Amino acid sequence: MNHPVIILVEPQLAENIGMVARAMANFGLSELRLVSPRNGWPKKGAHSAASGATHILEGARLYDTASEAIADLNYVFATTARERGQMKRVFGPDAAMTEAQARIGVGQGVGILFGRERTGLENDEISLADSIITFPVDPKFSSLNLAQAVLLMSYEWRKRETGGALPFAGERLSPPAPREMVVSFFDYIEAELEAVNFYPADKKPIMARNMRDIFHRLEMSEQDVRTLRGAIRALAEARRLRKP
Amino acid sequence: MNHPVIILVEPQLAENIGMVARAMANFGLSELRLVSPRNGWPKKGAHSAASGATHILEGARLYDTASEAIADLNYVFATTARERGQMKRVFGPDAAMTEAQARIGVGQGVGILFGRERTGLENDEISLADSIITFPVDPKFSSLNLAQAVLLMSYEWRKRETGGALPFAGERLSPPAPREMVVSFFDYIEAELEAVNFYPADKKPIMARNMRDIFHRLEMSEQDVRTLRGAIRALAEARRLRKP
Repeated sequence: MNHPVIILVEPQLAENIGMVARAMANFGLSELRLVSPRNGWPKKGAHSAASGATHILEGARLYDTASEAIADLNYVFATTARERGQMKRVFGPDAAMTEAQARIGVGQGVGILFGRERTGLENDEISLADSIITFPVDPKFSSLNLAQAVLLMSYEWRKRETGGALPFAGERLSPPAPREMVVSFFDYIEAELEAVNFYPADKKPIMARNMRDIFHRLEMSEQDVRTLRGAIRALAEARRLRKP
Repeated sequence: MNHPVIILVEPQLAENIGMVARAMANFGLSELRLVSPRNGWPKKGAHSAASGATHILEGARLYDTASEAIADLNYVFATTARERGQMKRVFGPDAAMTEAQARIGVGQGVGILFGRERTGLENDEISLADSIITFPVDPKFSSLNLAQAVLLMSYEWRKRETGGALPFAGERLSPPAPREMVVSFFDYIEAELEAVNFYPADKKPIMARNMRDIFHRLEMSEQDVRTLRGAIRALAEARRLRKP
């Protein structure tokens, strides 16, 4: 178990269990435990809601009680939206997953308990846990959907595990064009603008500087310079062809 | 607009739109815009999925095109799971909301475009945006549900806006007991254990130190000390009563 285990206590809706599996798969978690799902297991509808994360549903292990579901773990978080008057440490999702990462790093098994859709975890179930996780929600609207709660934990786990690495970094990796190329581009624009009497008398120096600043803000790559230079050339050539 | 605006482009499923509203309400967002929802608007089923966030659904504004939906904004993010070959800056949800906070702080209107459930945003729609947001998903399972994507953005926004404040902080605010009380507790336990010959000859100092370390790790509050002392007293008294 080199990831946190997700434990759903008496989940009711097949769609929610499927969405939980999908959320786990999105962020690289895989171990799901179900404590006495209401109306039995497997449930119709879970697979389609899992949207392809069937390996997680099929690997899910069933338990009769929360106590049995956490028996082999070393550290357990309980999620709750309400204060329960238990003298436990309270984490947000981010700090909780920092704690989980440290514990898993030294070989501990870590699990997160999630309660029933309507009523959450019972106080006796929360009492099984070492600490509490709650979410930085708007107190006026604090009820998170079950799969949404699992998603936030999975997301915060993965941010820590991968250092927030994104699946792609963008094309904008080409470095800014060499200064020589940029200055040559400025000279070219300014010459073409002069040729069409763009600058009022005596205003050229200040206007040219302002326009250079616009282009500097772009941090143009070589390709950007070529693209823009080509566009200006096209305008200028069209004018020359019309002239005679 | 002192929050980011959520813009859904051609959303299809009523349940997803309702879940989007719920996710926004969980984290204090309120402005929703819908671009040509498939099969019209309002949709049956959206309200029940919103689970009480009806003010957001009822306040949602309708547009024909993405371009019209962002016309009044100053800065626009487009979300996508796939690289699109567009030379835009790519943010994760956390860095994107740091950027949004800075812009909203100086009075800019900021929006986030989300695409269709199956096919996402079209390249021309992404081209309307200043930059791209993508999620730190497992590349093998990168398809986030629409409401889950909105949830992550709303969550990261709120973390920044509130500094990650949680709705409750836990009861564990009572400070560790004064050292005098702790030492008196140790003396009491050790005397009771000595009375029942718990310590083998010569082992008392080391065994007592080890047990003190166990209790030190607890960082006991005054109430903790009273609770544990009471439990030990109950055991000791029962023994004395049985003795004669």
